[in-house]
Amino acid sequence: MSKGVTPKSQDYSRWYTDIITKAELADYGPVKGTMVIKPYGYSIWESLKEAFDKRFKETGHVNAYFPLFIPKSFLSKEAQHVEGFAKECAVVTHSRLKNSESGGGIIVDPDSKLDEEIIVRPTSETVIWSMYKKWINSYRDLPILINQWANVVRWEMRTRLFLRTSEFLWQEGHTAHSTETEAIAEARKMLEVYKEVVENVMAVPVLTGTKSESEKFAGAIDTYCIEAMMGDKKALQAGTSHYLGQNFAKAFDVKFQSEDNKEEFVYATSWGVSTRLIGALIMVHGDDKGLRLPPKLAPIQVVIIPIFKSDDDLEKIKVFLSNIFEEFKINNIRFHLDSRKKLSPGFKFNEWEMKGVPIRIEVGQRDINSNSIFVARRDTNEKKSVKINDGFKKIQELINDIQNNLFNTAKRFRDDNTFVTNNYKEFKKIVNTGGFVECGWDGKTETEDKIKKETKATIRCIPFNNDAENLKCIYTQESAKYRVVFAKAY
Amino acid sequence: MSKGVTPKSQDYSRWYTDIITKAELADYGPVKGTMVIKPYGYSIWESLKEAFDKRFKETGHVNAYFPLFIPKSFLSKEAQHVEGFAKECAVVTHSRLKNSESGGGIIVDPDSKLDEEIIVRPTSETVIWSMYKKWINSYRDLPILINQWANVVRWEMRTRLFLRTSEFLWQEGHTAHSTETEAIAEARKMLEVYKEVVENVMAVPVLTGTKSESEKFAGAIDTYCIEAMMGDKKALQAGTSHYLGQNFAKAFDVKFQSEDNKEEFVYATSWGVSTRLIGALIMVHGDDKGLRLPPKLAPIQVVIIPIFKSDDDLEKIKVFLSNIFEEFKINNIRFHLDSRKKLSPGFKFNEWEMKGVPIRIEVGQRDINSNSIFVARRDTNEKKSVKINDGFKKIQELINDIQNNLFNTAKRFRDDNTFVTNNYKEFKKIVNTGGFVECGWDGKTETEDKIKKETKATIRCIPFNNDAENLKCIYTQESAKYRVVFAKAY
Repeated sequence: MSKGVTPKSQDYSRWYTDIITKAELADYGPVKGTMVIKPYGYSIWESLKEAFDKRFKETGHVNAYFPLFIPKSFLSKEAQHVEGFAKECAVVTHSRLKNSESGGGIIVDPDSKLDEEIIVRPTSETVIWSMYKKWINSYRDLPILINQWANVVRWEMRTRLFLRTSEFLWQEGHTAHSTETEAIAEARKMLEVYKEVVENVMAVPVLTGTKSESEKFAGAIDTYCIEAMMGDKKALQAGTSHYLGQNFAKAFDVKFQSEDNKEEFVYATSWGVSTRLIGALIMVHGDDKGLRLPPKLAPIQVVIIPIFKSDDDLEKIKVFLSNIFEEFKINNIRFHLDSRKKLSPGFKFNEWEMKGVPIRIEVGQRDINSNSIFVARRDTNEKKSVKINDGFKKIQELINDIQNNLFNTAKRFRDDNTFVTNNYKEFKKIVNTGGFVECGWDGKTETEDKIKKETKATIRCIPFNNDAENLKCIYTQESAKYRVVFAKAY
Repeated sequence: MSKGVTPKSQDYSRWYTDIITKAELADYGPVKGTMVIKPYGYSIWESLKEAFDKRFKETGHVNAYFPLFIPKSFLSKEAQHVEGFAKECAVVTHSRLKNSESGGGIIVDPDSKLDEEIIVRPTSETVIWSMYKKWINSYRDLPILINQWANVVRWEMRTRLFLRTSEFLWQEGHTAHSTETEAIAEARKMLEVYKEVVENVMAVPVLTGTKSESEKFAGAIDTYCIEAMMGDKKALQAGTSHYLGQNFAKAFDVKFQSEDNKEEFVYATSWGVSTRLIGALIMVHGDDKGLRLPPKLAPIQVVIIPIFKSDDDLEKIKVFLSNIFEEFKINNIRFHLDSRKKLSPGFKFNEWEMKGVPIRIEVGQRDINSNSIFVARRDTNEKKSVKINDGFKKIQELINDIQNNLFNTAKRFRDDNTFVTNNYKEFKKIVNTGGFVECGWDGKTETEDKIKKETKATIRCIPFNNDAENLKCIYTQESAKYRVVFAKAY
């Protein structure tokens, strides 16, 4: 724990994994591709969940739970969907184990072979729309605004903790509407909820826009996304919201009787964010000392390190801090007094810096004598002595300051590394060293594919309110259809 | 929705399923054995989760997340464990689908066969102890007090919503300790937490005790349990807490260096409650009008039905109620104004009674004229007019009253149907018509098996602080080793 991480500049990928290991966020599970989310990492996920869940409920959504298992046949009901998800899924074929007759341990009982194989959900559109078929008859049953918090599985061999694992945790909203207008508005609204949480709680600035045909969700009419820039200037898709049109309603034959007595297929959306966001958090805010957590998300906002030798010393420090602790409690400031013995203050400093706690307070006999506390902020490393009576006010200010500073720093970094060009040679240079490129695109998948093949960059999003007038396509130099953002991505 | 349920007395099992359907708690999923938890049912689960989670954290536990997938070989590392869980599990054998070459839709790609089959977790002891092996070296790493909220799978063909489904939601605590004493104390402490929540929040009285050898968890030294009596006088195991000794530490070779520098195997506990508790809630409190929810658990504690014809009427009612709504908000009383149009008050009464909302308020012009509200309690069906100024105080009283009344009613029912006997003929009669029997048992599995075969009754628990002096075994009439509780069970 006390040892540092590989410097970012030296090996970004190792730096990332080092932080996860040393801040005790996650570990590799025994089955290839799986991840264990350790208590500290999970407490960050709990904070994030709470922030999202509150907003989902405020916007009229309710939670429910649908089965993990999907009949194989369901996956192929929507033509695009099967293409996207059949290639990487866990297939359950048997329901029993037994002792090997030859004495070689336990084996799969061949007699327990299932009539139809079962898929472990890679996403739940199919199983949910098979239920909506039962639940929806009339316009009175609409809208349905359901969300679920669940685990999903997409087979992955190249594991990257939080970013790419076979199983991950997420939320998936699945809504049903009587009109296209309402469904599109819903999909756009949830994208705004995502943007608000990711920017205001996680302090990660994002671009919003539409995905190109080749990048959209398998089964969607349109995929909207939030895209963030990581510390290595690559892009990360932080959340998506899909307008699914009537695709799934048609696949599962879900019709409703409208107010004027007509039968129509139902309109759908789906939207999701996952534990991948913790990867973004690390890559946007982390530094060579470890994680840096925005206060609104931090499970511990203030850690207090007492400098003491005896139990008596510790007792005095606790008495000295009792008022400020009381104020922390009343104001819901999440604090932790680290009074572990046998560990040096220096060791503790490193540990909590690694874990990204935004504010550290040090208190020893000298501080008590001068009626003050010593306050260090994790984001800028600034330290200063503060009178104990001003302590609570100062901490409150710092909580706001640090939240804003982390966001502004990340935004400045992204803006400084976003370039506008109309020159393909320059485009290639930028993409190669890292950064976002804003440029024209003729709207053709063929062009996009060629650029991807030559540079590995993809269209991250087609920003909303798109103005492509007088713009030429970066590749073909023909008249551009859209102004888009290209980058290499995770 | 407006139609009632099958009367309890007529067909208990249909009554149970009717409530689930008509109160919109759950539905059957497309794969046999699976369940969909609908929004209203899920909101009850969220309430329950919150009640447990708060107490887990207060007792020093943290949440984490371990993988869904377990290597097949892990299951057989603990000899008892494999016996208990190998018989009914979902086995993943492949990782890809593909289009059939003969054009018959998608098939499992034979090239994606896994080297080692994977089990979908039926419980997580094995995967967690494989991780603890990596995390535990010294006594300084102990105790580990981890809980996880997760889905688990145990293959079931005879589905019974909430009670028996292939996949269910639960929490599983998995703790690691340096001494046997500490581990046993932990297992007992968590059983007390279960008892407290189930009795005080769910208003379901429970017996606590130890399971007999044949009923204990596969892999445990001792299983402690809470047992409740359902409305049909059968028992339901509502939660279990296991002292696992060093069984899993030995199976996964998890040793720690003690303070005096000795190497020792780690001591373990595990404990869990599941969505099965919702089944208990229904069967303990439900009546022929539907569900009855204890106020502490109810997602909606007070439903307000306005009696109105025009928008103007409704507006007046809202103004009339504005103060009391304000008081509800300040005091965290969960209320809902059902102002849906086109539905009659009578329809709404039935619907909310079915959903078990503890208190209903009716307000129309006549009530406004007399400056009062009409209050109905779900548990006793009592109704009366209350002056609006006394309204909030009355509701607060009712919330307490209803909570207590549901508990006391359930406790009286259990006590009235618990019999002490030493006569096997009487035992059989009681067991046959339903109820708990308290009697002596010689402590032999053989005796227990015979009784089970003859009567279908099993030992539900061996109560703590057991006094079997002068008691004879109900079956063999030999000197009893324990005073136990027998019943037929779910």
